[in-house]
Amino acid sequence: MESRSFTHPKVLWLRRLVSDKRVRRAEGLAVAEGWKVVEAALDTGAKLLSVFIDPDRSMDMDLLGRVDALGVPVVRLQHGVLGRVADSTTPQGVMAVVEVASCPAEEVFGAVGDAPCVLVCVDVRDPGNMGTIVRVVAASGATGLACSAGCADPWSPKAVRASAGSVFSVPLALDVDPLLVIRVARGRSVPCYGTSALHGTAYTDCGLGGSWAIFLGNESTGLSRDLAASLDCMVHIPIASSVESLSVSSAAAILCFEAARQRGLTLRQAAGGRVNTTREGM
Amino acid sequence: MESRSFTHPKVLWLRRLVSDKRVRRAEGLAVAEGWKVVEAALDTGAKLLSVFIDPDRSMDMDLLGRVDALGVPVVRLQHGVLGRVADSTTPQGVMAVVEVASCPAEEVFGAVGDAPCVLVCVDVRDPGNMGTIVRVVAASGATGLACSAGCADPWSPKAVRASAGSVFSVPLALDVDPLLVIRVARGRSVPCYGTSALHGTAYTDCGLGGSWAIFLGNESTGLSRDLAASLDCMVHIPIASSVESLSVSSAAAILCFEAARQRGLTLRQAAGGRVNTTREGM
Repeated sequence: MESRSFTHPKVLWLRRLVSDKRVRRAEGLAVAEGWKVVEAALDTGAKLLSVFIDPDRSMDMDLLGRVDALGVPVVRLQHGVLGRVADSTTPQGVMAVVEVASCPAEEVFGAVGDAPCVLVCVDVRDPGNMGTIVRVVAASGATGLACSAGCADPWSPKAVRASAGSVFSVPLALDVDPLLVIRVARGRSVPCYGTSALHGTAYTDCGLGGSWAIFLGNESTGLSRDLAASLDCMVHIPIASSVESLSVSSAAAILCFEAARQRGLTLRQAAGGRVNTTREGM
Repeated sequence: MESRSFTHPKVLWLRRLVSDKRVRRAEGLAVAEGWKVVEAALDTGAKLLSVFIDPDRSMDMDLLGRVDALGVPVVRLQHGVLGRVADSTTPQGVMAVVEVASCPAEEVFGAVGDAPCVLVCVDVRDPGNMGTIVRVVAASGATGLACSAGCADPWSPKAVRASAGSVFSVPLALDVDPLLVIRVARGRSVPCYGTSALHGTAYTDCGLGGSWAIFLGNESTGLSRDLAASLDCMVHIPIASSVESLSVSSAAAILCFEAARQRGLTLRQAAGGRVNTTREGM
Protein backbone atom coordinates (compact mmCIF):
# COMPACT_ATOMS: atom_id res chain seq x y z
CA MET A 1 0.00 0.00 0.00
CA GLU A 2 1.37 3.43 -0.94
CA SER A 3 0.08 6.97 -0.65
CA ARG A 4 -1.24 8.72 -3.76
CA SER A 5 -2.39 12.27 -4.57
CA PHE A 6 -5.13 13.67 -6.83
CA THR A 7 -2.88 13.88 -9.91
CA HIS A 8 -1.22 10.45 -9.67
CA PRO A 9 -1.76 8.36 -12.86
CA LYS A 10 -3.81 5.68 -11.02
CA VAL A 11 -6.06 8.38 -9.56
CA LEU A 12 -6.44 10.02 -12.98
CA TRP A 13 -7.53 6.60 -14.33
CA LEU A 14 -10.09 6.27 -11.51
CA ARG A 15 -11.38 9.81 -12.17
CA ARG A 16 -11.88 9.03 -15.87
CA LEU A 17 -13.75 5.82 -15.01
CA VAL A 18 -16.02 7.71 -12.58
CA SER A 19 -16.88 10.51 -14.98
CA ASP A 20 -16.80 9.09 -18.52
CA LYS A 21 -19.11 6.37 -19.83
CA ARG A 22 -16.99 5.91 -22.98
CA VAL A 23 -13.92 5.12 -20.91
CA ARG A 24 -15.93 2.58 -18.85
CA ARG A 25 -17.22 0.93 -22.02
CA ALA A 26 -13.82 0.91 -23.76
CA GLU A 27 -12.11 -0.68 -20.75
CA GLY A 28 -15.05 -2.89 -19.64
CA LEU A 29 -14.84 -1.46 -16.13
CA ALA A 30 -17.15 0.11 -13.57
CA VAL A 31 -16.52 1.80 -10.22
CA ALA A 32 -18.11 0.61 -6.98
CA GLU A 33 -18.33 3.23 -4.20
CA GLY A 34 -18.82 2.42 -0.52
CA TRP A 35 -18.09 -0.61 1.64
CA LYS A 36 -21.46 -2.33 1.14
CA VAL A 37 -21.35 -1.99 -2.65
CA VAL A 38 -17.75 -3.26 -2.83
CA GLU A 39 -18.75 -6.20 -0.62
CA ALA A 40 -21.72 -6.95 -2.93
CA ALA A 41 -19.32 -6.94 -5.91
CA LEU A 42 -17.02 -9.42 -4.13
CA ASP A 43 -19.98 -11.60 -3.13
CA THR A 44 -21.07 -11.96 -6.77
CA GLY A 45 -17.58 -13.14 -7.72
CA ALA A 46 -16.87 -10.04 -9.82
CA LYS A 47 -13.19 -9.43 -10.58
CA LEU A 48 -11.77 -6.38 -8.78
CA LEU A 49 -8.74 -4.72 -10.42
CA SER A 50 -7.95 -2.13 -7.74
CA VAL A 51 -9.32 -0.90 -4.45
CA PHE A 52 -8.74 2.73 -3.41
CA ILE A 53 -9.09 3.72 0.24
CA ASP A 54 -8.91 6.85 2.35
CA PRO A 55 -7.01 5.56 5.42
CA ASP A 56 -8.36 8.44 7.54
CA ARG A 57 -11.98 7.30 7.11
CA SER A 58 -13.55 4.32 8.90
CA MET A 59 -12.57 1.01 7.29
CA ASP A 60 -14.09 -2.45 7.02
CA MET A 61 -10.98 -4.49 7.94
CA ASP A 62 -12.70 -7.85 7.24
CA LEU A 63 -13.46 -6.72 3.71
CA LEU A 64 -9.92 -5.42 3.19
CA GLY A 65 -8.71 -8.83 4.36
CA ARG A 66 -10.82 -10.54 1.68
CA VAL A 67 -9.52 -8.10 -0.95
CA ASP A 68 -5.95 -8.76 0.14
CA ALA A 69 -6.43 -12.54 0.09
CA LEU A 70 -7.57 -12.27 -3.54
CA GLY A 71 -4.36 -10.41 -4.42
CA VAL A 72 -6.21 -7.23 -5.41
CA PRO A 73 -3.92 -4.16 -5.09
CA VAL A 74 -5.08 -1.68 -2.43
CA VAL A 75 -4.13 1.95 -3.09
CA ARG A 76 -4.03 4.31 -0.09
CA LEU A 77 -4.94 7.83 -1.08
CA GLN A 78 -4.03 11.03 0.72
CA HIS A 79 -6.89 12.22 2.95
CA GLY A 80 -9.62 14.00 0.99
CA VAL A 81 -8.55 12.72 -2.45
CA LEU A 82 -11.25 10.03 -2.57
CA GLY A 83 -13.91 12.60 -1.66
CA ARG A 84 -12.85 14.74 -4.63
CA VAL A 85 -12.87 11.76 -7.01
CA ALA A 86 -16.21 10.38 -5.80
CA ASP A 87 -19.44 11.08 -7.59
CA SER A 88 -21.38 10.91 -4.31
CA THR A 89 -21.91 13.98 -2.15
CA THR A 90 -21.39 11.83 0.95
CA PRO A 91 -18.57 9.53 -0.18
CA GLN A 92 -17.45 6.64 1.94
CA GLY A 93 -13.79 5.76 2.33
CA VAL A 94 -13.53 3.16 -0.44
CA MET A 95 -13.85 2.79 -4.21
CA ALA A 96 -13.14 -0.30 -6.29
CA VAL A 97 -12.58 -0.77 -10.01
CA VAL A 98 -14.58 -3.80 -11.14
CA GLU A 99 -14.59 -5.76 -14.42
CA VAL A 100 -17.98 -5.75 -16.18
CA ALA A 101 -19.23 -7.04 -19.52
CA SER A 102 -22.35 -6.45 -21.56
CA CYS A 103 -23.82 -9.66 -22.94
CA PRO A 104 -25.64 -10.18 -26.27
CA ALA A 105 -29.44 -9.75 -26.19
CA GLU A 106 -29.86 -13.54 -26.52
CA GLU A 107 -28.07 -14.13 -23.23
CA VAL A 108 -30.41 -12.03 -21.06
CA PHE A 109 -33.07 -14.58 -22.03
CA GLY A 110 -31.10 -17.33 -20.28
CA ALA A 111 -30.71 -20.89 -21.48
CA VAL A 112 -33.04 -22.17 -24.22
CA GLY A 113 -35.87 -24.12 -22.60
CA ASP A 114 -36.09 -21.87 -19.53
CA ALA A 115 -39.02 -19.47 -19.01
CA PRO A 116 -37.23 -16.12 -19.34
CA CYS A 117 -38.42 -12.98 -17.53
CA VAL A 118 -36.68 -10.03 -19.16
CA LEU A 119 -37.03 -6.33 -18.41
CA VAL A 120 -36.22 -3.96 -21.27
CA CYS A 121 -35.46 -0.29 -20.53
CA VAL A 122 -35.92 2.10 -23.45
CA ASP A 123 -34.34 5.54 -22.88
CA VAL A 124 -34.63 5.47 -19.08
CA ARG A 125 -32.45 8.52 -18.44
CA ASP A 126 -31.99 8.81 -14.68
CA PRO A 127 -29.08 6.79 -13.25
CA GLY A 128 -30.88 6.45 -9.90
CA ASN A 129 -33.90 4.91 -11.62
CA MET A 130 -31.62 2.66 -13.66
CA GLY A 131 -29.81 1.33 -10.58
CA THR A 132 -33.07 0.82 -8.69
CA ILE A 133 -34.46 -1.13 -11.65
CA VAL A 134 -31.37 -3.38 -11.77
CA ARG A 135 -31.88 -4.09 -8.04
CA VAL A 136 -35.55 -4.94 -8.65
CA VAL A 137 -34.63 -7.31 -11.51
CA ALA A 138 -32.12 -9.10 -9.28
CA ALA A 139 -34.39 -9.23 -6.21
CA SER A 140 -37.44 -10.48 -8.09
CA GLY A 141 -35.51 -13.33 -9.67
CA ALA A 142 -36.02 -12.05 -13.23
CA THR A 143 -33.63 -13.44 -15.84
CA GLY A 144 -31.95 -10.28 -17.11
CA LEU A 145 -32.13 -6.69 -18.27
CA ALA A 146 -31.68 -5.14 -21.71
CA CYS A 147 -31.10 -1.37 -22.10
CA SER A 148 -31.34 0.82 -25.19
CA ALA A 149 -28.44 3.12 -26.12
CA GLY A 150 -30.46 6.08 -24.82
CA CYS A 151 -30.53 4.77 -21.24
CA ALA A 152 -28.44 6.05 -18.34
CA ASP A 153 -25.36 3.86 -17.94
CA PRO A 154 -26.03 1.13 -15.32
CA TRP A 155 -22.28 1.14 -14.68
CA SER A 156 -22.12 4.82 -13.71
CA PRO A 157 -21.19 5.25 -10.04
CA LYS A 158 -24.65 6.61 -9.18
CA ALA A 159 -26.44 3.67 -10.83
CA VAL A 160 -24.05 1.15 -9.23
CA ARG A 161 -24.81 2.71 -5.82
CA ALA A 162 -28.58 2.70 -6.43
CA SER A 163 -28.32 -0.96 -7.49
CA ALA A 164 -26.61 -1.73 -4.14
CA GLY A 165 -24.06 -3.68 -6.18
CA SER A 166 -26.62 -5.99 -7.82
CA VAL A 167 -25.46 -4.57 -11.17
CA PHE A 168 -22.57 -7.04 -10.89
CA SER A 169 -24.85 -10.09 -10.73
CA VAL A 170 -27.65 -9.35 -13.23
CA PRO A 171 -27.10 -10.33 -16.90
CA LEU A 172 -27.11 -6.98 -18.73
CA ALA A 173 -27.32 -6.31 -22.47
CA LEU A 174 -26.41 -2.66 -23.04
CA ASP A 175 -26.91 -0.32 -26.02
CA VAL A 176 -29.34 -2.83 -27.52
CA ASP A 177 -31.91 -2.01 -30.22
CA PRO A 178 -35.36 -2.75 -28.70
CA LEU A 179 -36.46 -4.22 -32.05
CA LEU A 180 -33.66 -6.79 -31.77
CA VAL A 181 -34.96 -7.75 -28.32
CA ILE A 182 -38.43 -8.25 -29.82
CA ARG A 183 -36.96 -10.53 -32.53
CA VAL A 184 -35.09 -12.60 -29.93
CA ALA A 185 -38.25 -12.86 -27.81
CA ARG A 186 -40.36 -13.94 -30.80
CA GLY A 187 -37.77 -16.60 -31.66
CA ARG A 188 -38.23 -17.99 -28.13
CA SER A 189 -42.06 -17.56 -28.17
CA VAL A 190 -41.80 -15.06 -25.31
CA PRO A 191 -44.66 -12.51 -25.24
CA CYS A 192 -43.59 -8.84 -25.37
CA TYR A 193 -45.51 -6.40 -23.15
CA GLY A 194 -45.26 -2.62 -23.16
CA THR A 195 -46.15 -0.40 -20.21
CA SER A 196 -48.45 2.58 -20.50
CA ALA A 197 -49.65 5.12 -17.93
CA LEU A 198 -52.91 5.52 -19.84
CA HIS A 199 -54.23 2.33 -21.41
CA GLY A 200 -53.82 -1.41 -21.77
CA THR A 201 -54.71 -4.53 -19.81
CA ALA A 202 -54.57 -4.17 -16.01
CA TYR A 203 -51.27 -5.78 -14.97
CA THR A 204 -53.00 -8.08 -12.48
CA ASP A 205 -55.03 -9.52 -15.36
CA CYS A 206 -51.91 -10.28 -17.44
CA GLY A 207 -50.44 -13.76 -17.36
CA LEU A 208 -46.99 -12.95 -15.95
CA GLY A 209 -46.46 -16.33 -14.27
CA GLY A 210 -44.63 -17.77 -17.29
CA SER A 211 -42.16 -16.10 -19.63
CA TRP A 212 -42.27 -12.41 -20.63
CA ALA A 213 -40.34 -9.43 -21.87
CA ILE A 214 -41.66 -6.15 -20.39
CA PHE A 215 -40.64 -2.87 -22.05
CA LEU A 216 -40.42 0.27 -19.89
CA GLY A 217 -40.14 3.68 -21.54
CA ASN A 218 -38.64 7.09 -20.84
CA GLU A 219 -39.54 8.95 -17.60
CA SER A 220 -41.32 11.79 -19.43
CA THR A 221 -42.44 10.39 -22.77
CA GLY A 222 -42.95 6.66 -22.13
CA LEU A 223 -42.60 4.23 -25.04
CA SER A 224 -42.79 5.56 -28.59
CA ARG A 225 -45.96 4.83 -30.54
CA ASP A 226 -43.98 2.85 -33.14
CA LEU A 227 -42.34 0.61 -30.58
CA ALA A 228 -45.64 0.10 -28.71
CA ALA A 229 -47.22 -0.99 -32.01
CA SER A 230 -44.53 -3.69 -32.40
CA LEU A 231 -45.34 -5.29 -29.04
CA ASP A 232 -47.96 -7.97 -28.33
CA CYS A 233 -49.92 -6.12 -25.66
CA MET A 234 -49.85 -2.98 -23.52
CA VAL A 235 -49.95 -3.38 -19.73
CA HIS A 236 -51.30 -0.75 -17.41
CA ILE A 237 -50.98 -0.20 -13.65
CA PRO A 238 -54.26 1.45 -12.57
CA ILE A 239 -53.59 4.43 -10.29
CA ALA A 240 -55.62 7.01 -8.40
CA SER A 241 -56.98 9.78 -10.61
CA SER A 242 -55.16 12.50 -8.64
CA VAL A 243 -51.79 11.27 -9.95
CA GLU A 244 -50.55 11.36 -13.53
CA SER A 245 -48.18 8.40 -13.39
CA LEU A 246 -45.81 6.32 -11.32
CA SER A 247 -42.03 6.60 -11.44
CA VAL A 248 -40.51 4.09 -13.85
CA SER A 249 -38.64 2.36 -11.02
CA SER A 250 -41.86 1.96 -8.98
CA ALA A 251 -43.57 0.51 -12.07
CA ALA A 252 -40.69 -1.95 -12.51
CA ALA A 253 -40.98 -3.04 -8.87
CA ILE A 254 -44.75 -3.54 -9.06
CA LEU A 255 -44.59 -5.52 -12.32
CA CYS A 256 -41.58 -7.71 -11.47
CA PHE A 257 -43.04 -8.63 -8.07
CA GLU A 258 -46.51 -9.24 -9.48
CA ALA A 259 -44.78 -11.68 -11.85
CA ALA A 260 -42.97 -13.29 -8.90
CA ARG A 261 -46.29 -13.53 -7.04
CA GLN A 262 -47.92 -15.20 -10.04
CA ARG A 263 -45.00 -17.62 -10.40
CA GLY A 264 -45.45 -18.45 -6.71
CA LEU A 265 -49.19 -18.97 -7.13
CA THR A 266 -48.57 -21.27 -10.08
CA LEU A 267 -46.13 -23.32 -8.01
CA ARG A 268 -48.59 -23.56 -5.15
CA GLN A 269 -51.40 -24.60 -7.43
CA ALA A 270 -49.10 -27.20 -9.01
CA ALA A 271 -48.34 -28.49 -5.50
CA GLY A 272 -52.04 -29.12 -4.94
CA GLY A 273 -52.65 -26.28 -2.53
CA ARG A 274 -49.67 -26.91 -0.28
CA VAL A 275 -47.78 -23.77 0.60
CA ASN A 276 -44.46 -23.85 -1.21
CA THR A 277 -41.71 -22.67 1.09
CA THR A 278 -38.92 -22.28 -1.46
CA ARG A 279 -37.85 -18.79 -2.51
CA GLU A 280 -39.51 -19.21 -5.90
CA GLY A 281 -42.67 -19.99 -4.02
CA MET A 282 -42.60 -16.44 -2.56
CA MET B 1 -43.49 41.16 -14.13
CA GLU B 2 -40.12 42.74 -13.34
CA SER B 3 -36.53 41.58 -13.64
CA ARG B 4 -34.65 40.45 -10.54
CA SER B 5 -31.03 39.49 -9.78
CA PHE B 6 -29.46 36.87 -7.48
CA THR B 7 -29.28 39.23 -4.48
CA HIS B 8 -32.79 40.72 -4.66
CA PRO B 9 -34.80 40.15 -1.42
CA LYS B 10 -37.41 37.95 -3.14
CA VAL B 11 -34.64 35.79 -4.62
CA LEU B 12 -32.91 35.57 -1.23
CA TRP B 13 -36.24 34.35 0.23
CA LEU B 14 -36.50 31.72 -2.53
CA ARG B 15 -32.90 30.61 -1.91
CA ARG B 16 -33.56 30.17 1.80
CA LEU B 17 -36.71 28.13 1.07
CA VAL B 18 -34.76 25.90 -1.35
CA SER B 19 -31.88 25.23 1.00
CA ASP B 20 -33.22 25.32 4.57
CA LYS B 21 -35.78 22.93 6.00
CA ARG B 22 -36.27 25.09 9.12
CA VAL B 23 -37.26 28.07 6.99
CA ARG B 24 -39.73 25.89 5.04
CA ARG B 25 -41.25 24.61 8.29
CA ALA B 26 -41.39 28.05 9.95
CA GLU B 27 -43.14 29.60 6.92
CA GLY B 28 -45.25 26.56 5.93
CA LEU B 29 -43.90 26.74 2.39
CA ALA B 30 -42.28 24.44 -0.16
CA VAL B 31 -40.69 25.04 -3.56
CA ALA B 32 -41.88 23.33 -6.74
CA GLU B 33 -39.32 23.16 -9.56
CA GLY B 34 -40.19 22.55 -13.22
CA TRP B 35 -43.32 23.07 -15.32
CA LYS B 36 -44.87 19.65 -14.70
CA VAL B 37 -44.44 19.87 -10.93
CA VAL B 38 -45.86 23.41 -10.80
CA GLU B 39 -48.80 22.21 -12.92
CA ALA B 40 -49.37 19.29 -10.52
CA ALA B 41 -49.41 21.75 -7.60
CA LEU B 42 -52.02 23.89 -9.37
CA ASP B 43 -54.08 20.79 -10.24
CA THR B 44 -54.31 19.79 -6.57
CA GLY B 45 -55.63 23.26 -5.67
CA ALA B 46 -52.53 24.16 -3.67
CA LYS B 47 -52.07 27.89 -3.02
CA LEU B 48 -49.12 29.39 -4.92
CA LEU B 49 -47.57 32.53 -3.39
CA SER B 50 -45.08 33.40 -6.14
CA VAL B 51 -43.87 31.98 -9.43
CA PHE B 52 -40.29 32.69 -10.57
CA ILE B 53 -39.36 32.28 -14.22
CA ASP B 54 -36.29 32.55 -16.41
CA PRO B 55 -37.74 34.31 -19.48
CA ASP B 56 -34.86 33.05 -21.66
CA ARG B 57 -35.84 29.39 -21.11
CA SER B 58 -38.77 27.66 -22.80
CA MET B 59 -42.08 28.51 -21.14
CA ASP B 60 -45.48 26.87 -20.74
CA MET B 61 -47.66 29.84 -21.70
CA ASP B 62 -50.92 27.99 -20.87
CA LEU B 63 -49.68 27.36 -17.35
CA LEU B 64 -48.53 30.98 -16.94
CA GLY B 65 -52.02 32.00 -18.06
CA ARG B 66 -53.55 29.87 -15.28
CA VAL B 67 -51.12 31.35 -12.75
CA ASP B 68 -51.98 34.87 -13.91
CA ALA B 69 -55.74 34.22 -13.75
CA LEU B 70 -55.32 33.18 -10.10
CA GLY B 71 -53.60 36.49 -9.34
CA VAL B 72 -50.30 34.81 -8.38
CA PRO B 73 -47.37 37.23 -8.85
CA VAL B 74 -44.88 36.12 -11.53
CA VAL B 75 -41.29 37.26 -10.98
CA ARG B 76 -39.00 37.39 -14.04
CA LEU B 77 -35.42 36.66 -13.09
CA GLN B 78 -32.32 37.65 -15.00
CA HIS B 79 -31.06 34.81 -17.20
CA GLY B 80 -29.10 32.23 -15.22
CA VAL B 81 -30.35 33.32 -11.77
CA LEU B 82 -32.91 30.49 -11.52
CA GLY B 83 -30.24 27.94 -12.45
CA ARG B 84 -28.07 29.16 -9.56
CA VAL B 85 -30.99 29.07 -7.10
CA ALA B 86 -32.25 25.65 -8.19
CA ASP B 87 -31.38 22.49 -6.34
CA SER B 88 -31.52 20.45 -9.57
CA THR B 89 -28.46 20.00 -11.80
CA THR B 90 -30.68 20.37 -14.86
CA PRO B 91 -33.10 23.11 -13.74
CA GLN B 92 -36.10 24.05 -15.82
CA GLY B 93 -37.15 27.67 -16.25
CA VAL B 94 -39.71 27.86 -13.43
CA MET B 95 -39.97 27.61 -9.65
CA ALA B 96 -43.05 28.23 -7.52
CA VAL B 97 -43.45 28.87 -3.79
CA VAL B 98 -46.35 26.76 -2.56
CA GLU B 99 -48.23 26.75 0.77
CA VAL B 100 -48.03 23.41 2.61
CA ALA B 101 -49.17 22.17 5.99
CA SER B 102 -48.38 19.13 8.10
CA CYS B 103 -51.49 17.56 9.60
CA PRO B 104 -51.85 15.79 12.98
CA ALA B 105 -51.26 12.02 12.99
CA GLU B 106 -55.01 11.44 13.41
CA GLU B 107 -55.76 13.10 10.09
CA VAL B 108 -53.60 10.82 7.92
CA PHE B 109 -55.99 8.06 9.02
CA GLY B 110 -58.87 9.89 7.31
CA ALA B 111 -62.42 10.12 8.59
CA VAL B 112 -63.53 7.82 11.40
CA GLY B 113 -65.37 4.85 9.90
CA ASP B 114 -63.20 4.65 6.77
CA ALA B 115 -60.68 1.83 6.27
CA PRO B 116 -57.42 3.79 6.47
CA CYS B 117 -54.26 2.68 4.63
CA VAL B 118 -51.35 4.61 6.14
CA LEU B 119 -47.66 4.39 5.31
CA VAL B 120 -45.25 5.39 8.08
CA CYS B 121 -41.64 6.30 7.23
CA VAL B 122 -39.17 6.03 10.11
CA ASP B 123 -35.83 7.74 9.42
CA VAL B 124 -35.97 7.35 5.62
CA ARG B 125 -33.04 9.65 4.85
CA ASP B 126 -32.87 10.03 1.08
CA PRO B 127 -35.06 12.82 -0.38
CA GLY B 128 -35.40 10.92 -3.68
CA ASN B 129 -36.74 7.88 -1.82
CA MET B 130 -39.05 10.10 0.21
CA GLY B 131 -40.54 11.76 -2.89
CA THR B 132 -40.93 8.43 -4.68
CA ILE B 133 -42.75 7.03 -1.64
CA VAL B 134 -45.14 10.01 -1.54
CA ARG B 135 -45.90 9.38 -5.23
CA VAL B 136 -46.58 5.69 -4.51
CA VAL B 137 -48.91 6.56 -1.62
CA ALA B 138 -50.87 8.94 -3.87
CA ALA B 139 -50.96 6.58 -6.87
CA SER B 140 -52.03 3.53 -4.88
CA GLY B 141 -54.93 5.38 -3.29
CA ALA B 142 -53.53 5.01 0.25
CA THR B 143 -54.97 7.40 2.83
CA GLY B 144 -51.88 9.25 3.99
CA LEU B 145 -48.24 9.27 5.06
CA ALA B 146 -46.63 9.88 8.45
CA CYS B 147 -42.90 10.64 8.72
CA SER B 148 -40.62 10.58 11.77
CA ALA B 149 -38.45 13.61 12.56
CA GLY B 150 -35.42 11.69 11.23
CA CYS B 151 -36.80 11.48 7.70
CA ALA B 152 -35.70 13.56 4.73
CA ASP B 153 -38.05 16.52 4.30
CA PRO B 154 -40.80 15.65 1.77
CA TRP B 155 -40.98 19.38 1.04
CA SER B 156 -37.34 19.68 -0.03
CA PRO B 157 -37.04 20.55 -3.73
CA LYS B 158 -35.55 17.12 -4.53
CA ALA B 159 -38.35 15.23 -2.77
CA VAL B 160 -41.01 17.46 -4.35
CA ARG B 161 -39.50 16.70 -7.79
CA ALA B 162 -39.33 12.94 -7.10
CA SER B 163 -42.96 13.05 -5.95
CA ALA B 164 -43.89 14.64 -9.31
CA GLY B 165 -45.91 17.17 -7.29
CA SER B 166 -48.06 14.55 -5.54
CA VAL B 167 -46.62 15.85 -2.25
CA PHE B 168 -49.23 18.63 -2.53
CA SER B 169 -52.17 16.19 -2.56
CA VAL B 170 -51.23 13.49 -0.02
CA PRO B 171 -52.14 14.09 3.67
CA LEU B 172 -48.76 14.28 5.40
CA ALA B 173 -48.00 14.21 9.13
CA LEU B 174 -44.38 15.31 9.59
CA ASP B 175 -41.96 15.00 12.52
CA VAL B 176 -44.31 12.47 14.14
CA ASP B 177 -43.31 10.02 16.88
CA PRO B 178 -43.91 6.49 15.46
CA LEU B 179 -45.26 5.42 18.88
CA LEU B 180 -47.96 8.10 18.59
CA VAL B 181 -48.95 6.66 15.19
CA ILE B 182 -49.25 3.21 16.80
CA ARG B 183 -51.52 4.64 19.52
CA VAL B 184 -53.74 6.36 16.93
CA ALA B 185 -53.90 3.13 14.88
CA ARG B 186 -54.80 1.05 17.96
CA GLY B 187 -57.55 3.56 18.80
CA ARG B 188 -59.02 2.94 15.35
CA SER B 189 -58.41 -0.87 15.45
CA VAL B 190 -55.99 -0.57 12.54
CA PRO B 191 -53.30 -3.31 12.48
CA CYS B 192 -49.68 -2.08 12.48
CA TYR B 193 -47.22 -3.94 10.25
CA GLY B 194 -43.45 -3.52 10.16
CA THR B 195 -41.27 -4.38 7.18
CA SER B 196 -38.18 -6.55 7.45
CA ALA B 197 -35.67 -7.68 4.85
CA LEU B 198 -35.07 -10.87 6.81
CA HIS B 199 -38.15 -12.29 8.49
CA GLY B 200 -41.91 -12.05 8.94
CA THR B 201 -45.00 -13.13 7.07
CA ALA B 202 -44.74 -13.06 3.27
CA TYR B 203 -46.54 -9.87 2.19
CA THR B 204 -48.81 -11.78 -0.19
CA ASP B 205 -50.08 -13.81 2.78
CA CYS B 206 -50.94 -10.66 4.79
CA GLY B 207 -54.48 -9.36 4.75
CA LEU B 208 -53.87 -5.92 3.26
CA GLY B 209 -57.30 -5.58 1.65
CA GLY B 210 -58.76 -3.72 4.66
CA SER B 211 -57.14 -1.13 6.90
CA TRP B 212 -53.43 -1.06 7.80
CA ALA B 213 -50.51 1.06 8.93
CA ILE B 214 -47.23 -0.16 7.41
CA PHE B 215 -43.95 1.04 8.95
CA LEU B 216 -40.87 1.36 6.70
CA GLY B 217 -37.44 1.83 8.25
CA ASN B 218 -34.14 3.47 7.44
CA GLU B 219 -32.31 2.59 4.17
CA SER B 220 -29.35 0.97 5.97
CA THR B 221 -30.60 -0.12 9.36
CA GLY B 222 -34.33 -0.79 8.83
CA LEU B 223 -36.69 -0.50 11.80
CA SER B 224 -35.27 -0.54 15.33
CA ARG B 225 -35.82 -3.68 17.39
CA ASP B 226 -37.83 -1.74 19.98
CA LEU B 227 -40.18 -0.27 17.43
CA ALA B 228 -40.60 -3.63 15.65
CA ALA B 229 -41.54 -5.18 19.01
CA SER B 230 -44.33 -2.60 19.41
CA LEU B 231 -45.98 -3.57 16.11
CA ASP B 232 -48.54 -6.33 15.54
CA CYS B 233 -46.68 -8.27 12.86
CA MET B 234 -43.59 -8.12 10.64
CA VAL B 235 -44.08 -8.33 6.88
CA HIS B 236 -41.43 -9.61 4.51
CA ILE B 237 -41.00 -9.35 0.74
CA PRO B 238 -39.22 -12.57 -0.30
CA ILE B 239 -36.34 -11.83 -2.67
CA ALA B 240 -33.71 -13.80 -4.58
CA SER B 241 -30.82 -14.99 -2.44
CA SER B 242 -28.25 -13.07 -4.54
CA VAL B 243 -29.60 -9.75 -3.24
CA GLU B 244 -29.48 -8.42 0.31
CA SER B 245 -32.56 -6.18 0.20
CA LEU B 246 -34.80 -3.96 -1.89
CA SER B 247 -34.69 -0.18 -1.87
CA VAL B 248 -37.21 1.29 0.58
CA SER B 249 -39.09 3.00 -2.26
CA SER B 250 -39.38 -0.28 -4.20
CA ALA B 251 -40.68 -1.99 -1.04
CA ALA B 252 -43.26 0.80 -0.61
CA ALA B 253 -44.42 0.36 -4.22
CA ILE B 254 -44.74 -3.42 -3.91
CA LEU B 255 -46.64 -3.27 -0.61
CA CYS B 256 -49.00 -0.39 -1.48
CA PHE B 257 -49.92 -1.97 -4.82
CA GLU B 258 -50.35 -5.44 -3.33
CA ALA B 259 -52.81 -3.76 -0.93
CA ALA B 260 -54.58 -2.09 -3.88
CA ARG B 261 -54.71 -5.48 -5.64
CA GLN B 262 -56.21 -7.12 -2.56
CA ARG B 263 -58.78 -4.31 -2.20
CA GLY B 264 -59.67 -4.92 -5.86
CA LEU B 265 -59.96 -8.70 -5.30
CA THR B 266 -62.22 -8.14 -2.33
CA LEU B 267 -64.47 -5.91 -4.42
CA ARG B 268 -64.56 -8.47 -7.21
CA GLN B 269 -65.39 -11.27 -4.80
CA ALA B 270 -68.13 -9.11 -3.25
CA ALA B 271 -69.50 -8.56 -6.76
CA GLY B 272 -69.88 -12.32 -7.22
CA GLY B 273 -66.97 -12.88 -9.59
CA ARG B 274 -67.78 -10.07 -12.00
CA VAL B 275 -64.78 -8.01 -13.01
CA ASN B 276 -65.03 -4.63 -11.35
CA THR B 277 -64.04 -1.90 -13.76
CA THR B 278 -63.79 1.04 -11.38
CA ARG B 279 -60.38 2.37 -10.38
CA GLU B 280 -60.71 0.82 -6.93
CA GLY B 281 -61.35 -2.45 -8.71
CA MET B 282 -57.84 -2.20 -10.25
